[in-house]
Amino acid sequence: MTTGLVLYSYWRSSAAYRVRIALNLKGLSYETQPVHLLRDGGQQHTAQYRALNPLESVPVLRDGDRVITQSLAIMEYLDEMHPELETALLPVDARGRAQVRALAMAICCDIHPLGNLRVLQQLEAQLGASEEQRAAWSRHWMDVGFRAIEAVLADSAATGRYCHGETPSVADACLVPQVYNAARWKLPMDDYPIIARIYQACNELEAFQRAAPEAQPDAP
Amino acid sequence: MTTGLVLYSYWRSSAAYRVRIALNLKGLSYETQPVHLLRDGGQQHTAQYRALNPLESVPVLRDGDRVITQSLAIMEYLDEMHPELETALLPVDARGRAQVRALAMAICCDIHPLGNLRVLQQLEAQLGASEEQRAAWSRHWMDVGFRAIEAVLADSAATGRYCHGETPSVADACLVPQVYNAARWKLPMDDYPIIARIYQACNELEAFQRAAPEAQPDAP
Repeated sequence: MTTGLVLYSYWRSSAAYRVRIALNLKGLSYETQPVHLLRDGGQQHTAQYRALNPLESVPVLRDGDRVITQSLAIMEYLDEMHPELETALLPVDARGRAQVRALAMAICCDIHPLGNLRVLQQLEAQLGASEEQRAAWSRHWMDVGFRAIEAVLADSAATGRYCHGETPSVADACLVPQVYNAARWKLPMDDYPIIARIYQACNELEAFQRAAPEAQPDAP
Repeated sequence: MTTGLVLYSYWRSSAAYRVRIALNLKGLSYETQPVHLLRDGGQQHTAQYRALNPLESVPVLRDGDRVITQSLAIMEYLDEMHPELETALLPVDARGRAQVRALAMAICCDIHPLGNLRVLQQLEAQLGASEEQRAAWSRHWMDVGFRAIEAVLADSAATGRYCHGETPSVADACLVPQVYNAARWKLPMDDYPIIARIYQACNELEAFQRAAPEAQPDAP
């Protein structure tokens, strides 16, 4: 389906990766507009980009004259604009929706913000944290977060092949980029077997494969 | 309305404060179950609480046998369970909903996680950050975030008396606790006049007043 959607993306951004997965799961085609987060002092900080997104971050979804920021808000928007049940990113029942959103937010609010590029840059600039200290910092928050999520998944009768049941959801679209990120920081996944299993199951799907950082047009 | 809702809350937690606002805006009564984040090494870390919420954080909403974590997921749940238009926490149109969610997430993902208690504790434990450095760290992320949100609000035709139009939404429920937090860290609000104006407008409402930290049963 051609939709005229444009995604402002960086190949290695976890948040952009989430939205790429969501777009693919929903079967929506889109154009990628690369924003290089390291080049030119960070292309997300240029005046032109700030005019599009004052948050100076990726992803941004442009849908005609609508400009939508924040990965979770974009995924909710896609689900609302394209409510076909067979590609729903959230369950139909309120309890299931809450569970999926809570899992997604356990990643997007509790883990990812703390290991973000700008945060690691600030740790170095303000507190002189070494590369090793920054890596330990990142691994610490991923470990805390993954342990909690692992416990939630172990406790829940709704956990299936994916985070919630037998079809991938917003929670999986958030989990996979975070696990990808963990590998970059050399965090062993042995302590989180359910997460590791779901990660594998997701990556067997073409929607996840096509969203992977290395598959992006702006990957080096 | 008596609903049997129980909110696990800490008076000064921003995330719990958001949900208290949302419950009040929706006119739902609830019982407060205090969780003291500093006492006993943090009551959110006890085995009993972890069994309720493996994320070891507040708030948690208990609705009968349902246990819902993450403030934004709880607010979405409340809106879905109680869809009466006059107390809706999100606009009806997909674009408006996306805008409100993006504003909420600009706080819940981009500002709040970086100044959280556990993060400040880790800055001290891992990197030896002094109290002054931790305060500067907190103010830095609030300033970056508020500048961005101020620009979004200035740009948007939808900005009204509140973050989105003439009724308070999830975005306001997130903004007010963050501005309250900014005052604790002595961040002057002069550079964010729209945010400061909306904060005042919100605090004229009883729903926000009753949710304030000082009005909680567990406030000292």
